[in-house]
Amino acid sequence: MIVSEISVRVIYADTDAMGIVYHSNYMRWFEMGRTELLRSSGISPLVMGRDTFFFPLTKLFCHYFEPAGYDDLLMVETKLAEIKRASLRFDYRIFDDKRERCLAEGWTLHACTKENGKIVRVPEIISSLIKSEGDE
Amino acid sequence: MIVSEISVRVIYADTDAMGIVYHSNYMRWFEMGRTELLRSSGISPLVMGRDTFFFPLTKLFCHYFEPAGYDDLLMVETKLAEIKRASLRFDYRIFDDKRERCLAEGWTLHACTKENGKIVRVPEIISSLIKSEGDE
Amino acid sequence: MIVSEISVRVIYADTDAMGIVYHSNYMRWFEMGRTELLRSSGISPLVMGRDTFFFPLTKLFCHYFEPAGYDDLLMVETKLAEIKRASLRFDYRIFDDKRERCLAEGWTLHACTKENGKIVRVPEIISSLIKSEGDE
Amino acid sequence: MIVSEISVRVIYADTDAMGIVYHSNYMRWFEMGRTELLRSSGISPLVMGRDTFFFPLTKLFCHYFEPAGYDDLLMVETKLAEIKRASLRFDYRIFDDKRERCLAEGWTLHACTKENGKIVRVPEIISSLIKSEGDE
Repeated sequence: MIVSEISVRVIYADTDAMGIVYHSNYMRWFEMGRTELLRSSGISPLVMGRDTFFFPLTKLFCHYFEPAGYDDLLMVETKLAEIKRASLRFDYRIFDDKRERCLAEGWTLHACTKENGKIVRVPEIISSLIKSEGDE
Repeated sequence: MIVSEISVRVIYADTDAMGIVYHSNYMRWFEMGRTELLRSSGISPLVMGRDTFFFPLTKLFCHYFEPAGYDDLLMVETKLAEIKRASLRFDYRIFDDKRERCLAEGWTLHACTKENGKIVRVPEIISSLIKSEGDE
Repeated sequence: MIVSEISVRVIYADTDAMGIVYHSNYMRWFEMGRTELLRSSGISPLVMGRDTFFFPLTKLFCHYFEPAGYDDLLMVETKLAEIKRASLRFDYRIFDDKRERCLAEGWTLHACTKENGKIVRVPEIISSLIKSEGDE
Repeated sequence: MIVSEISVRVIYADTDAMGIVYHSNYMRWFEMGRTELLRSSGISPLVMGRDTFFFPLTKLFCHYFEPAGYDDLLMVETKLAEIKRASLRFDYRIFDDKRERCLAEGWTLHACTKENGKIVRVPEIISSLIKSEGDE
């Protein structure tokens, strides 16, 4: 399974006047998680995302089970869940730092495009991540 | 139909290095849309959201059809789509300023709670918005 | 005097767990203010900022006198305060909606560059804004 | 010297359509830097910032020397620069990851208040940080 785990600490900038993390700030953590997943698989977002391929986000979903608060230490788990011909799906779960409670889970779908915006097939370097895993 | 329409102008703060609006910034516009919808129905978010009832967001979904760019003028349409016993759903569509193209659509689900976090029935002042409409 | 005034409504996304507007969100309003100032002077940020000239921010300062809170309606006053050979300075004041109290004031300094990053002279279309005013 | 150093990786959420980090996002890193500085001095922001003392930001300044770009790894250096009777000043410098170039420097000034907003003397636990250092 292609998975990454990162830790994030909630700062005031992440919170709102209800005293909890404002919902859209989870999207930052999702981006950090998928970048880390690719980097740890040897895929630089610089090479992949800027010069050659882009992965614009086309759909997102998030379910918030419990709020996160100021100064909480959270664990963001990201999985490369599905690769289709011209799209990728990442799944995410946000846990407390002891991984006892799942505070939120979500997913994002990404098209695969060239710099001109044309949709293209997912590059072999990425699709091989899941294939090679299936071979094991 | 309980609907609001607001205009927003894309600024640099909304965009990212791909040259388009970063996906999580649509969530700001969704919040602006639902606040405006309630305000135009005579429901102050101050009375409703701070002193008495809170509507924490529990689920969100967004589908991005086309990117929005710097300095674009957009139209955000918000509908109060469904009221259940203890939750509300708002639906959103983002259009270009001529309303010719729909750039994105999404929805958010909100619990209804008191200040102590306890889930309670949606207040009559809100549920009546849809009921009175059904009577017409 | 080249001045713009815009209204902004504080949403949850702007606030933090101290119950007030998080300080960096004033920078969004400053950007909205200077874009509106140029637009109302007939200078499109699209022509000016993207195709030909850029005005990257090089210094910023802000003094916060009083906090702003959720759902407050604020007035953002922006002045084109100074034009030098290759830089612009904008001054800002944030007021409550009755303009009785000044909640914050600040300024931003901007270089004038071409798309390649080279610093160039401020274009005549902008420097004439202050000159023509001096003639009055 | 009371100093902290943290690393941050630039994500798309931090950047704008000019292809660089949007200026207000440095304020997030400043907050991360000062929280880390206090934590590493044994001062929990939870105890200090939420239950007893608050340090609302009253002034900020930042000078941007060079832009930071997508996927850059940056180093944020924070110093507790000055403690007055009822205020603190933190100084910040943002470096590239090899610490060869300083991309930006700034400072923030904070009042010391109780939960009710009343300005009070900086607590001994913090003022002793600089005093004890002076004794060395």
